[in-house]
Amino acid sequence: MLQEKSVVLIGAGNVATSLGHTLHRRGIPVTQVFSRTRESAQALAAKIGAEAVSRWELLCDDAGVYIVSLPDEVLTREVSRLVAGREQALWVHTAGSVPMQVWEGYTSRYGVLYPLQTFSKAREVDLSRVPLFVEANSPQDTLFLRQWAGQLSEQVYEADSTQRKALHLSAVFACNFVNHLYAIAGEWLARHGLPFETLLPLIDETARKVHALPPRQAQTGPAVRYDEATIQTHLNALEEWPEWQQLYERLSRDIQDMDSGQQHTPII
Amino acid sequence: MLQEKSVVLIGAGNVATSLGHTLHRRGIPVTQVFSRTRESAQALAAKIGAEAVSRWELLCDDAGVYIVSLPDEVLTREVSRLVAGREQALWVHTAGSVPMQVWEGYTSRYGVLYPLQTFSKAREVDLSRVPLFVEANSPQDTLFLRQWAGQLSEQVYEADSTQRKALHLSAVFACNFVNHLYAIAGEWLARHGLPFETLLPLIDETARKVHALPPRQAQTGPAVRYDEATIQTHLNALEEWPEWQQLYERLSRDIQDMDSGQQHTPII
Repeated sequence: MLQEKSVVLIGAGNVATSLGHTLHRRGIPVTQVFSRTRESAQALAAKIGAEAVSRWELLCDDAGVYIVSLPDEVLTREVSRLVAGREQALWVHTAGSVPMQVWEGYTSRYGVLYPLQTFSKAREVDLSRVPLFVEANSPQDTLFLRQWAGQLSEQVYEADSTQRKALHLSAVFACNFVNHLYAIAGEWLARHGLPFETLLPLIDETARKVHALPPRQAQTGPAVRYDEATIQTHLNALEEWPEWQQLYERLSRDIQDMDSGQQHTPII
Repeated sequence: MLQEKSVVLIGAGNVATSLGHTLHRRGIPVTQVFSRTRESAQALAAKIGAEAVSRWELLCDDAGVYIVSLPDEVLTREVSRLVAGREQALWVHTAGSVPMQVWEGYTSRYGVLYPLQTFSKAREVDLSRVPLFVEANSPQDTLFLRQWAGQLSEQVYEADSTQRKALHLSAVFACNFVNHLYAIAGEWLARHGLPFETLLPLIDETARKVHALPPRQAQTGPAVRYDEATIQTHLNALEEWPEWQQLYERLSRDIQDMDSGQQHTPII
């Protein structure tokens, strides 16, 4: 019964692409893919047997679930136009930091389906191991979304908009900022004629380690050893790159603050 | 022939412990483990069939290779006492930021064996996949170290002291600072009643992704999307934690600087 709900994907970016492929593989029909960019809609639609549409008036009105993966400000701006004439369906967005209430007043059945993962078009992600956080405006649709999302992933949780915002902010630290530190490390190696690949075993072990130890116990390196001589050596090496020097100093002091227990209460 | 060289480990910390276990498993005899802390020496020595010593005068003088994994400042202070009477052996240290020249003038055969990895006693690491960077003061001992280290790891490279220092600094960014970002993300989730484990699939994919894409291409999230509304939402959420708020802002701007190509030349 769950599988009979047909889906329309609105958006053809990284998240929509990953959802589209997974829905298709699970045999859940995606009837349309909408994107304002015709080529993006066509590229995804062709791969998952859906119709590509790039004009709002061509959006069908008989799907069971509409999944909206548009940039936050586009979703907020277009919500009224999206749902008009399609108020019988369940509407969900996939954004970390947009509250569920974005739908309120426009339609009667709505919610959120937030995948906690980093998606790039160049790389397919197996959604079955991606935690999906769902929320809906009625107990019936919350239950429906939990079960429906359970066809996509083994890990489905409920999270309200406040928790989802906290998840999103944490993900920025644990993924986007982490990836940027990989980029800085790679740049630094490149400047010294060394390939990025030499860092991969270290990067892998750093990630694997926090499966077994809490990050605070997993910490190693000059800062947590209070090895001021090495910290100074590194700060000197970074002298010509003041942004990275300041970043090094700030992160090192923050590691020491956390280690000494100074960082567990807000300032107010 | 290589295996006949007996080894003395000086130090019983995280690096020495990992080296000791690997040497033992490879059938390379470790005759002594030295640590100023008797219990540390005994704990490691007992597991790898070595003698534990904690007084300098008991250090044997007939080993082929002495591997020194002491805190940087202890190595620098004790180098003369260590090598006296043992100048026929090959001496190597394992520190990222101590130049090979620390040995110069004290003994005639010396070098470095630097494992690029994060080691904690609570977690055993398979050294066979850890890149080992070697350096010695003669071509013969460089060749010897390459071959000898090849028994411990599949990945052995030569690196001079300048390159090794660059590797170490990069490792601080890609491991120690990354782990600290995991810790911040975990703290933030804990404050919102969410378990750290929900981040693990994201952490894993972030690490896996840079095996296939360079980090700059792998970047996702509000900063690289120039999604100023989400950035502002997150900065507001961090208002009571000014250190993390500043870190968020600095890292976001640095991601944008790198994305726009502003960060590829030093300031001088």
